[in-house]
Amino acid sequence: MPDRPLLAGVDVGGTKVAVLVVRQDGSVAGRAVLPMDRRDGGPTTGGDGGPRDGGPSAGGDGGPRAGEAGVSRIVEAVRRAVATAGAGERDLGAIGVGAPGWVDAEAGIVRLATNLGWHDLALVAALEEALGVPCGLENDVGLAAMGLVDHPLSHGARSLAYVAVGTGIGAGIVVDGERYRGRRGGAGEIGHVVAVPNGARCACGQRGCLETVAAGWGIERAAREAVASGSGGRLGGLASITAADVYAAARDGDASALEITKAAGAALARAIVGLVLICDVERVLIGGGVAAAGDAFVDPLRAELDRLRADSDLVRGLLAEDAVIVLPPDFDAVAWGGVALARRMGSAKA
Amino acid sequence: MPDRPLLAGVDVGGTKVAVLVVRQDGSVAGRAVLPMDRRDGGPTTGGDGGPRDGGPSAGGDGGPRAGEAGVSRIVEAVRRAVATAGAGERDLGAIGVGAPGWVDAEAGIVRLATNLGWHDLALVAALEEALGVPCGLENDVGLAAMGLVDHPLSHGARSLAYVAVGTGIGAGIVVDGERYRGRRGGAGEIGHVVAVPNGARCACGQRGCLETVAAGWGIERAAREAVASGSGGRLGGLASITAADVYAAARDGDASALEITKAAGAALARAIVGLVLICDVERVLIGGGVAAAGDAFVDPLRAELDRLRADSDLVRGLLAEDAVIVLPPDFDAVAWGGVALARRMGSAKA
Repeated sequence: MPDRPLLAGVDVGGTKVAVLVVRQDGSVAGRAVLPMDRRDGGPTTGGDGGPRDGGPSAGGDGGPRAGEAGVSRIVEAVRRAVATAGAGERDLGAIGVGAPGWVDAEAGIVRLATNLGWHDLALVAALEEALGVPCGLENDVGLAAMGLVDHPLSHGARSLAYVAVGTGIGAGIVVDGERYRGRRGGAGEIGHVVAVPNGARCACGQRGCLETVAAGWGIERAAREAVASGSGGRLGGLASITAADVYAAARDGDASALEITKAAGAALARAIVGLVLICDVERVLIGGGVAAAGDAFVDPLRAELDRLRADSDLVRGLLAEDAVIVLPPDFDAVAWGGVALARRMGSAKA
Repeated sequence: MPDRPLLAGVDVGGTKVAVLVVRQDGSVAGRAVLPMDRRDGGPTTGGDGGPRDGGPSAGGDGGPRAGEAGVSRIVEAVRRAVATAGAGERDLGAIGVGAPGWVDAEAGIVRLATNLGWHDLALVAALEEALGVPCGLENDVGLAAMGLVDHPLSHGARSLAYVAVGTGIGAGIVVDGERYRGRRGGAGEIGHVVAVPNGARCACGQRGCLETVAAGWGIERAAREAVASGSGGRLGGLASITAADVYAAARDGDASALEITKAAGAALARAIVGLVLICDVERVLIGGGVAAAGDAFVDPLRAELDRLRADSDLVRGLLAEDAVIVLPPDFDAVAWGGVALARRMGSAKA
């Protein structure tokens, strides 16, 4: 529907759905964010793509009702975003949706999104029926990575990884403009690569996964442990501690918080170097809720990357000074990836 | 030249060149192994593919003479292997060659093989001129991985990684029968992913790379350190210690050697799980000189893989019980990959 002036990108997360409506020239016309129901409150294996999110330990199945409620919420968010653009549904040309977990993009089905309680949800069919507009679907981090290809924020790179650092940690990988999916579409599970041998127990059952030290839940766990051991500093005064609290305390120089964020940044830096060693991408772009903490997040990451570069010709050769980019906090890479997908759908039909 | 009855696969290593001559039905007709000159004796970044082997710290450039000597040695090895088959050069239909380091397969050029002192060596042209037969070239671990696709030893897998554990450690990755090369052909540098944060210094400049604990040179380093600290057990009696000595001592129950081989197996197991998490391959096949040590190599690797599987639904779902396969010590995966490449060249011309 190339005569319709608007495109929508949708970021379906475990806690909220964010919709971005843009004009054909790429300017933002409208936005909306609505909460999504979480299935449970424990640490999760992250919205990081692939079949292995579905281990029996990873939470319950919400059944068809969870899917229906989720679809309604997405439809409502799209309608609100279109309304904030001062437009109507008939102005929408296409929608691109990024969903967490194991997504069958070709079939338009979310196979398993543990945090949302979705199992074999035919999301594309449901959205197309409700909104009367062509809809594309992808795994969230993969969609974000594809959307960053040739993008100004990635300096035009065509081989890159998008790493989402939020409640969980996952990566989408693109090489020469093509998404790298692996055998079952599960590539990029960087959050469960061991960062600290024999470290803290992860929700996945292993010990010392990257998530245990650098994901939102891992940072919160470390803060709770510091408080319990009496070394929590200013964090000890909080009723419940979020990763944002820890980064805020670190920004103010709290020693205990700085220790936690330094360990997180160092582990993330080493994992990023490892990802580049294995996948040979040009740039790594970092987004997600935890990465939005600003300098308190960026400084320890940069410090370790600089140290590794200073130590190693190999790392220096691999990772140019500007190869690792923390995306602006207000840039929703998944929603923008959805816009890019919606645009490709329009071109394909035109 | 499909009317010629023989194919040759060539494994060019840092210390030797091995040639395998097979009949069109795949049966072995002849073999030969000749030593190659090493450029220097220090730890290397391994014959593991990719441009980053060429850091300034990684050894000298042998210049054109090193290339000429290497080509002569390969030509001699091919002639000997053909002779052991009771045949002549005119019976050879095609040659497939695997070389370490950074290989430009399309151009037929070895861009940089640090251990051999080769820099921009036009190996395909040189071999075709000397032997008068079509020649194909690939990076060694990539060639081995491609040769294992649909192979009985990989149980017919089409998405797999070949991990060479020798002096260095590197991996070749294949997904759906297609080689995964990354942006610059450097994918699979698993040997320099950090296995032990703040561990021993690696030749690459980082600390605690997988190679520092699990590659031949890392095992030898650990053994020398154990001897120097007085805890070397039986290894203390040796004038110089090889990785094979350490595995032999471990096999005989030497406590110090067992500690070293256990740490190597555990780090390798975690790195393999990490590789599968990031690349989503179905099987991991392990070859190389260190992996030829038999049970003393396999047992600690299996023990850690079993432990990770027992701990984690995620790992169990990712890595089937038989997903990690240590190749038979007498199976030269690179040379067999060369045979497979030679066969494809024959088919392409037929």
